[in-house]
Amino acid sequence: MALDDKKSRFKYVGTTPNRPDGVDKVTGKAQYGADITAPGMLTGAILRSPHPHARIVSIDTSAAEAIPGVRAVVTGKDFAPVEDQGFADIGETCMARDKVLYDGHPVAAVAATTPAIAKAAIRAIKVEYAPLPHVTDVDEAMRPDAPVVLEGRALEHVPAGMSQNVTNTCEFGHGDVEAGFAKADLVLERSFKVAAAHQGYIEPHACMASVTSDGRADLYCCTQGHFFVRAVCSALMGMEASQLRVTASEIGGGFGGKTTVFIEPVALMLSKKSGRPVKLVMTRDEVFKASGPTVHASIDCKIGMTKDGRITAGDMTLRYSGGAWPSGTIEMGAQAGFAAYDMPAVRTIGWTALTNRPKEISYRAPGAPQAVYAVEAVIDEMCQQLGLDPLKTRLKNAAAKGTLSSYGVTFDEIGMVATLEAAQAHPHWSAPLGPNQGRGVAAGFWFNFGGNTCVTLNINTDGTASVTEGNPDIGGSRASISLMAAEELGIRYENVRTIVADTASLGYNDNTDGSRVTFAVGLATIKAARAAIKVMCERAAALWGIDAEAVDWIDGAAHPSGPNAGKFPPMTLAEIAAQSFQTGGPIAGHHEVNVDGAGVSFGVHICDVEVDPETGHTLVKRYTVVQDAGKAVHPTYVEGQMQGGAVQGIGWALNEEYIYGKDGRLQNAGFLDYRIPVASDLPKIDTVILEIPNPGHPYGVRGVGETPIVPPLAAVTNAVSRTIGKRMYQVPMSPPRILSAIKGA
Amino acid sequence: MALDDKKSRFKYVGTTPNRPDGVDKVTGKAQYGADITAPGMLTGAILRSPHPHARIVSIDTSAAEAIPGVRAVVTGKDFAPVEDQGFADIGETCMARDKVLYDGHPVAAVAATTPAIAKAAIRAIKVEYAPLPHVTDVDEAMRPDAPVVLEGRALEHVPAGMSQNVTNTCEFGHGDVEAGFAKADLVLERSFKVAAAHQGYIEPHACMASVTSDGRADLYCCTQGHFFVRAVCSALMGMEASQLRVTASEIGGGFGGKTTVFIEPVALMLSKKSGRPVKLVMTRDEVFKASGPTVHASIDCKIGMTKDGRITAGDMTLRYSGGAWPSGTIEMGAQAGFAAYDMPAVRTIGWTALTNRPKEISYRAPGAPQAVYAVEAVIDEMCQQLGLDPLKTRLKNAAAKGTLSSYGVTFDEIGMVATLEAAQAHPHWSAPLGPNQGRGVAAGFWFNFGGNTCVTLNINTDGTASVTEGNPDIGGSRASISLMAAEELGIRYENVRTIVADTASLGYNDNTDGSRVTFAVGLATIKAARAAIKVMCERAAALWGIDAEAVDWIDGAAHPSGPNAGKFPPMTLAEIAAQSFQTGGPIAGHHEVNVDGAGVSFGVHICDVEVDPETGHTLVKRYTVVQDAGKAVHPTYVEGQMQGGAVQGIGWALNEEYIYGKDGRLQNAGFLDYRIPVASDLPKIDTVILEIPNPGHPYGVRGVGETPIVPPLAAVTNAVSRTIGKRMYQVPMSPPRILSAIKGA
Repeated sequence: MALDDKKSRFKYVGTTPNRPDGVDKVTGKAQYGADITAPGMLTGAILRSPHPHARIVSIDTSAAEAIPGVRAVVTGKDFAPVEDQGFADIGETCMARDKVLYDGHPVAAVAATTPAIAKAAIRAIKVEYAPLPHVTDVDEAMRPDAPVVLEGRALEHVPAGMSQNVTNTCEFGHGDVEAGFAKADLVLERSFKVAAAHQGYIEPHACMASVTSDGRADLYCCTQGHFFVRAVCSALMGMEASQLRVTASEIGGGFGGKTTVFIEPVALMLSKKSGRPVKLVMTRDEVFKASGPTVHASIDCKIGMTKDGRITAGDMTLRYSGGAWPSGTIEMGAQAGFAAYDMPAVRTIGWTALTNRPKEISYRAPGAPQAVYAVEAVIDEMCQQLGLDPLKTRLKNAAAKGTLSSYGVTFDEIGMVATLEAAQAHPHWSAPLGPNQGRGVAAGFWFNFGGNTCVTLNINTDGTASVTEGNPDIGGSRASISLMAAEELGIRYENVRTIVADTASLGYNDNTDGSRVTFAVGLATIKAARAAIKVMCERAAALWGIDAEAVDWIDGAAHPSGPNAGKFPPMTLAEIAAQSFQTGGPIAGHHEVNVDGAGVSFGVHICDVEVDPETGHTLVKRYTVVQDAGKAVHPTYVEGQMQGGAVQGIGWALNEEYIYGKDGRLQNAGFLDYRIPVASDLPKIDTVILEIPNPGHPYGVRGVGETPIVPPLAAVTNAVSRTIGKRMYQVPMSPPRILSAIKGA
Repeated sequence: MALDDKKSRFKYVGTTPNRPDGVDKVTGKAQYGADITAPGMLTGAILRSPHPHARIVSIDTSAAEAIPGVRAVVTGKDFAPVEDQGFADIGETCMARDKVLYDGHPVAAVAATTPAIAKAAIRAIKVEYAPLPHVTDVDEAMRPDAPVVLEGRALEHVPAGMSQNVTNTCEFGHGDVEAGFAKADLVLERSFKVAAAHQGYIEPHACMASVTSDGRADLYCCTQGHFFVRAVCSALMGMEASQLRVTASEIGGGFGGKTTVFIEPVALMLSKKSGRPVKLVMTRDEVFKASGPTVHASIDCKIGMTKDGRITAGDMTLRYSGGAWPSGTIEMGAQAGFAAYDMPAVRTIGWTALTNRPKEISYRAPGAPQAVYAVEAVIDEMCQQLGLDPLKTRLKNAAAKGTLSSYGVTFDEIGMVATLEAAQAHPHWSAPLGPNQGRGVAAGFWFNFGGNTCVTLNINTDGTASVTEGNPDIGGSRASISLMAAEELGIRYENVRTIVADTASLGYNDNTDGSRVTFAVGLATIKAARAAIKVMCERAAALWGIDAEAVDWIDGAAHPSGPNAGKFPPMTLAEIAAQSFQTGGPIAGHHEVNVDGAGVSFGVHICDVEVDPETGHTLVKRYTVVQDAGKAVHPTYVEGQMQGGAVQGIGWALNEEYIYGKDGRLQNAGFLDYRIPVASDLPKIDTVILEIPNPGHPYGVRGVGETPIVPPLAAVTNAVSRTIGKRMYQVPMSPPRILSAIKGA
């Protein structure tokens, strides 16, 4: 597919209309998770462990149950064990069974007629704990003498010198790494630490559940994937999926953090026991303590390079901890670390260890920012040592079409080289710097996902179209999907309405994650539109009395073609739609598919910082994001994704971190102490959108949303390091850490 | 199609599981129209005309607007005129323009922060009326000197001696009627009056509308057809259909009365003007005064018969009034009147005239009970006069396969003869009667509808299925649809969940009316299930590595067939579903169609009454309904429909009527004065379900819900007439009317 051909013919794709949900959201009309109510609804509240690790000796709920207005009390005993280990783990994060495993772990819940009664009931529950030794750091957790967080989940063969907390391992790579290092002029090995960060979505988790006495249930919740919510909740409740109908509310941010459940099974169980609808809404404190932040990481990265900047080999060991349960995120980190480069020899080994922290969940490009941070910081330090230009050096090693990647995939058409070249050509790269200022650059990579997707497209009799899809709209996907439907059908964007259907109205859709929605739902929408067009051509052919094959669809109308060309005037979609009830009935197109062919994505970020040598405070002065988006369906929302990802990466690089005390308790469970960047902390983020078409999508679309959080950790680190003349090996680089680096220098 | 073959193989169809919405409804969890809320929601209220007919001189809303808490005031001026006359008429019933046309006609509406403020604001609106002469009776309205209700809507050629209120006319029939009468031994002509009745649904109309400033809107309402609501509301609001999403709440009865809108456009306009969600709920008084009751009718019916009971000709003139706007119900009445009989000569002429009453809307078999009442009463009187058995006489004239019906259709396989024979064989027919008791019998007919229908069926990975349909479930259709899906797929009823999707999630569906849902949605569900089965067979074939054509679907599993028969063990739906993400993605089936082939339906009712000669009070002592249901998908709900229709017909026959005073105002706008039968008024209604398969449906299903309201008017009349020895020619036969008949005798 030649993008230029396509480009010239796009009429709607590439334009930037307002998102359909925009007005509702800015006027307060949009219904978020906490806005849903039902007659007779109760309020739920959750009692949480103050201990990072303890055996639950007993729970006495009798005093709580005796309070007037309390209608149900739930503990771990109410949930029957489930076979699926993944679902069982999620269930245990929602409600402890025999042990509490982190500060904030739920131990009981109540539903009552008012919030005040619910809170009083929570206080009236008596829990006896037998505290156990705890561990909250991944390196400490891997030591053989570490307290074992969760028994029976260690690797079958834990290597000598490691603890029973080690649950996952993986290895990727190719070539002879040692031989590669031998060919290098410089081999540099560095160790890094990356703190756990939280997605920081503005809307706390909220849901409303209503279970009937015959076992059917409705659940409304704020989620990135109501079909997954249905799967896990129906398993935990012992229900069949078809009996649970889950409706996604509007979502006030997710960034991966709403791809699982934390309170939904509890609300369902409270509703089941009380016979009443139950609403549960987390406080911000609960969100920080007991939703899913990222893994925290400890990384050793070793790279060999020739004097002229050719990488000869790379070797990295990643140690991730995703809290108290096994986590597979390590695999994505291990695959992503070296993925931007064409390397003759590469090896990445990953380990996951359990710690007494909440179970991690995805955050934009999960696992990748940490691993890429290490690689990009080492490359930058090597460029400094060898006196090489960091962009030219990356260009020299850039992965391209045909490259055997560090994780075993051979790349198709990709944008790494183009992205680096665009960064090099950007005025930012050659702009002068002031005093106490420095410039960093870093590349980043993300896979992008496809996955299970179902779309229904209905042609209304007034010539408009309704698209029914199943992925909660976080970043404007209702707009991008509508644009693609309009493009394919040949009707105006305003004539299309895309809505997110509940789990009973559509087939299964994977979560809104992996930057998959505009790519995969878009592809299914295009296919559904083509199916509807086929029906419309058949209807027109029948009205004309000609063969359906001899009809072309051009610019929103059926045209007779072949021997009949010109015999009848074109019949527009609106005309065909208006007659549809007389020509066979309503017209629709459908598509169900497990999409593959998601195109990988690369970005290069340039960052200028100014570091205050007195306070260690870092101000980002200028920031440019260059990224290959494939075809940008809605360029301003693509830009928004690139800016948003960069900002979140900057926050992580400079300030955001989970801080656990010696007591194993989270010390900064609020936005005052867990500091995310606000507008005044940031410059305008400049963006350059490249459009290298993805061969796996009819319009060339790639995913966009995750790649931009990958480079900032290293881009900011490299800028700070070059500014203060001292390399930084820990994220976030909070003012005390920078000050201590400056003073240590 | 031989039903017996089918019958023997049905596994789920014909069983009687609980309806899926049953528990929600009996425990109060079901969300009806008035239960829906939204953040920031306002309460609406409507100011209604106290005059039956008046010109609106002025409306001063300034005092209302000045009340703190009032956020919007709406009058007819807010609605732009619309082209479609049908939609314009509906719009005018919702909000008057220049004239008020009936007692209760809306003239203004407000939205305020509380119900009390809304009521105060309504009182503060000053309307100046110039009263006009009114007419509320159809016969009076047809007189040439009658006040003209609505200018410019008369027939192009109003016959001499009729008024400009006459808006519709129709004629059906065949043969030489006069020659037919000449062959008769007895020709009898009688005139009848049938009062307007209300559907008497327990839930008043209720809705909640939310319009955004960019013109998109959501509407939740209690309706029999949210797609039609979308069509009419989007037209009245000047919106595109795709921009209005309508969700149907659960429905507390409709019976045809919720197939249009009365308050929804007003709520939308109030929301548009206030920028806030607005809820509107009718009071019972408003429901009676200003929703849609039935037409009221005046009928002349003339029949000729030979001594041995053969009908030689029939001639009938129907005069219906459906209130202040033209109504097409007359056509259905005119077609239905003589439809049960095979007549050599028949003519039915219909007229519609405007009166100062609310615009009628459907009520179970709209138009038919009135016309059939006249025919069945005349036949009964003739049988009395000629000394003939009323069932044998009907059998002698019964329509059958091949009969050219009175409305021009030649019947296919029908159940009129079987129904009469079953009535004859029923013990009720030969049971003894006590003093002051009499027995009446009457037949009835209804067309049954098909219509536009869309169904999506999704196979879940746990082996369950979700059926998405678009017709609000009034009579248990979620159960009947689930049964047919289970039957076709070969999985348990409990593994299927059928839900009613909103207008954005599915293609257009005609209203839940015309007894069409189990027939038409059932047909589309069977077709959608077959489409899903085709996909499942393909998936199984791919897994086996054989040709997809060589797979049969038997009893919920794919079986290799032909040359591969027995080579692989059968693969169940659950097994195929569990692997679906690995074999191409989610599995679904879809079907969109404008269904025809609805099978007409006949019923025969036997009614025993006891009339108190002192008070004129009639007690129904025994009642039996015999009806051809086609295949009864869920026999107890079929029975419920037959009982419910009979009860509503009994109420109409004995007590229910709209009573307008000389002042043109409704005198009995409440359930105390408009008396519907309660349980203590009624015997157990016995039912006999016949199953003459409809050739137009894969399982032989016909419609069920409307036919049973058709015979009772005549069955009860014939029973009362035979009891008191005096023929009754007016419905309802309230105690004063019966007493006056007895005394007049």
